[in-house]
Amino acid sequence: MNYNKKEAIEILERTPLSLDLFLSGLSPSWLQISEGEGTWTVSEVIEHLIEAEKYNWLPRLEHILTAGESKPFPPFDRYSHINKESERKIELSLLEFKEIRASNMAKLTAIPDLEEHFEKTGLHPEFGTVKVRELLSTWVVHDLTHIAQVVRVMAERYRMDVGPWREYLGIYKRK
Amino acid sequence: MNYNKKEAIEILERTPLSLDLFLSGLSPSWLQISEGEGTWTVSEVIEHLIEAEKYNWLPRLEHILTAGESKPFPPFDRYSHINKESERKIELSLLEFKEIRASNMAKLTAIPDLEEHFEKTGLHPEFGTVKVRELLSTWVVHDLTHIAQVVRVMAERYRMDVGPWREYLGIYKRK
Repeated sequence: MNYNKKEAIEILERTPLSLDLFLSGLSPSWLQISEGEGTWTVSEVIEHLIEAEKYNWLPRLEHILTAGESKPFPPFDRYSHINKESERKIELSLLEFKEIRASNMAKLTAIPDLEEHFEKTGLHPEFGTVKVRELLSTWVVHDLTHIAQVVRVMAERYRMDVGPWREYLGIYKRK
Repeated sequence: MNYNKKEAIEILERTPLSLDLFLSGLSPSWLQISEGEGTWTVSEVIEHLIEAEKYNWLPRLEHILTAGESKPFPPFDRYSHINKESERKIELSLLEFKEIRASNMAKLTAIPDLEEHFEKTGLHPEFGTVKVRELLSTWVVHDLTHIAQVVRVMAERYRMDVGPWREYLGIYKRK
């Protein structure tokens, strides 16, 4: 097991700040493209990260700590943010992400002796028994996978522009 | 053509600042892993980005503007940073990256009427004729591809830790 709470929090704390610095103030063209129908824009990725802060990671952790495997997690709708009616400026989304992540980090840090609960198990609605430490490490990798998605979506804008260099750019081979 | 100098500079300016915020102060475990033999650590990616600032983008642009296709670019060794003997703290690498990128942005902005040279061509040592606007858009996508690499390498650390969630995390499918 490589998971380590202190090292995990290093990433979780930095993600919203780094995305804010990278995305705030960008021209709309970078934020409105997607990888085609049914795929997300950069703005939609940020909304998804906010939804996961609200309904996924910490609620599921608390669910395991209080209910164990006695009942499954409430399902997390990975597309819930798509159904939101209003679009808002990405700076507002990034602000909300920063605030809710900071609040969740404070709550996570305040759980006494979290390390002692790492092997506790809960019931995932789709794939059954999962451990606290699996949930906690997935929280981190979920950040990393969506950062990779953000830059991959943005790269779409220049897919044709780069000409013969396209063959050298790994980001165009990973869709 | 989607390439636009102003929009491109938005990304090029943000990359070193965002990477600095994301990577500075991290525990060594995040910076020392790679994806296996012959692949790069996060620190090596930053060194490669610095080398490209020194020997690739702006020198090649200046080469096209002065020599056209009369002689090919000097080759850029994509592995030159690997041969450097001394390892240094990533904070120092990130500082150098920020400084040389800022300096290169000032030089790029100072080129008069760059837009009028977009269709000018140079000779790439491997794949022949390339245009100024292809070089300039590749500079941007090169940032994006290496940001994606940085988070993908870091995710390796928790590949086993995430347990059954592994199947849901796209970052583990793109190697």
